[in-house]
This record gives sequence, structure tokens and C-alpha cells, in this order.
Amino acid sequence: METVSLTEAFDSFDETWSPRLAGELNGQAVKLAKADGEFVWHQHEAADELFLVNAGRLRIEFRDEADAVLEAGEFTIVPRGTEHRPVAEPEAEILLFEPSETRNTGDVETDETVSDLERID
Amino acid sequence: METVSLTEAFDSFDETWSPRLAGELNGQAVKLAKADGEFVWHQHEAADELFLVNAGRLRIEFRDEADAVLEAGEFTIVPRGTEHRPVAEPEAEILLFEPSETRNTGDVETDETVSDLERID
Repeated sequence: METVSLTEAFDSFDETWSPRLAGELNGQAVKLAKADGEFVWHQHEAADELFLVNAGRLRIEFRDEADAVLEAGEFTIVPRGTEHRPVAEPEAEILLFEPSETRNTGDVETDETVSDLERID
Repeated sequence: METVSLTEAFDSFDETWSPRLAGELNGQAVKLAKADGEFVWHQHEAADELFLVNAGRLRIEFRDEADAVLEAGEFTIVPRGTEHRPVAEPEAEILLFEPSETRNTGDVETDETVSDLERID
């Protein structure tokens, strides 16, 4: 049975805003991303998205309510259809749980859109 | 948007082998459990199960292959239909990610079976 060390997995890449696939189960994926500064405003029509911070601090902005500010060891769930913008202050390591097919930029296409995720070895 | 601190959540209960519901998304649940010693052998017919260790060490035994030994910050995914036995050495804090309806003792009914999970406030 494969075991994944979050520390080793995050040490294995440097690219920011480019999620790596660390595991899949029940049609859902565990994705690991490094974040640095502001990401793009977006939403996922059909996917709730969990953000768990492994290191650093992540602020998630919403259009109509207060920001969620996550320190290491904290998580929140962004409901489907909720426009949001992740902002790392200044850097963060993030674990995402979401349906495997969820695209990082949701309903918008930008230079940061990643369609085929690299897999953590 | 609700934020959950894993440290605060694990500090909020003492009971072992009794998962608490910490969040739900896409029909899946984030469950937090304290583990101490040996659990019961069981399997989940229709659910893959992710174990992420928050503190301590968890060993997961399998019938036909080597144990998975998880330290803090490590996870593994047990595929559906795979008989397994979690053993905490001696104690561990575990985050589980699995379909919401997954029962802790899977296909067996024991004194440790928990059907209605308490929710982390």
C-alpha cells in the first residue's frame, strides 16, 4: 500500500498554482499545491472544494462574505457555485480534496489553468 | 465560511475509535478519530478510505501484504473491499476522508460500531 509523506511530496516540486495529484479515491482527488500571492477569481459549478493548509497562511476571499483565513492545520470547505479567490500570504502549501475532474481555475481559463495534473511519485 | 482547526477539533474530545464529523463535501466526509491500540479487522465493500495521521503513529495491517506505517503528516488510501486493521502505536490522531455513509467497522458489527457520528462544533 503506497504511503505519501506530505513533507516529501511538497519538497518534490516548486511550481506555484499548479496542483499535483497525490491520490484518488471514490472519484475524488487529493491534490497538493504551492501558492504564492493572488490567484484568479473563479468558481466550480459542480464541486465543493476543501482547502487544508499544510504550511504558511492562505486567505480565501468571497464576493459576499468575510474572508476565510487559514493557518497551518486549518481547513475550510468552499461550496459549489461560490466565487472565491485564494491568496497566499505570502506563500502556502495547500492540500485540496475535490472531485478528480475539478479544474484549478474553475469556470475561467487563464494562463494558470492546468488540465492535466502531474502525479506525485 | 466555517474554518476548522485540527488542533482544536482533536482537543474537543477524548473518546477513541469514535470518529467525529468535521466536514462534508460532494457526498464525502472528513472525519476525525482518536485511536489507541488495536481496532477490529474489517472492510468497506463500496468505499475507498483515506487515512491521514495528524499526530502519533498508525499502522494498518492487511491480510496479504505488508503493513502501512503512517507517521504524522503521512497518508495512505485503502481500496474498497480490502480487509484491514488499524493499530495505533500507542495513540494517534487520524483524519479520514471517505463517503459520508461509511461505517467505522465496515462489514462487521462490534461494540465499537458507531452509526451516528457526533459533529465537531
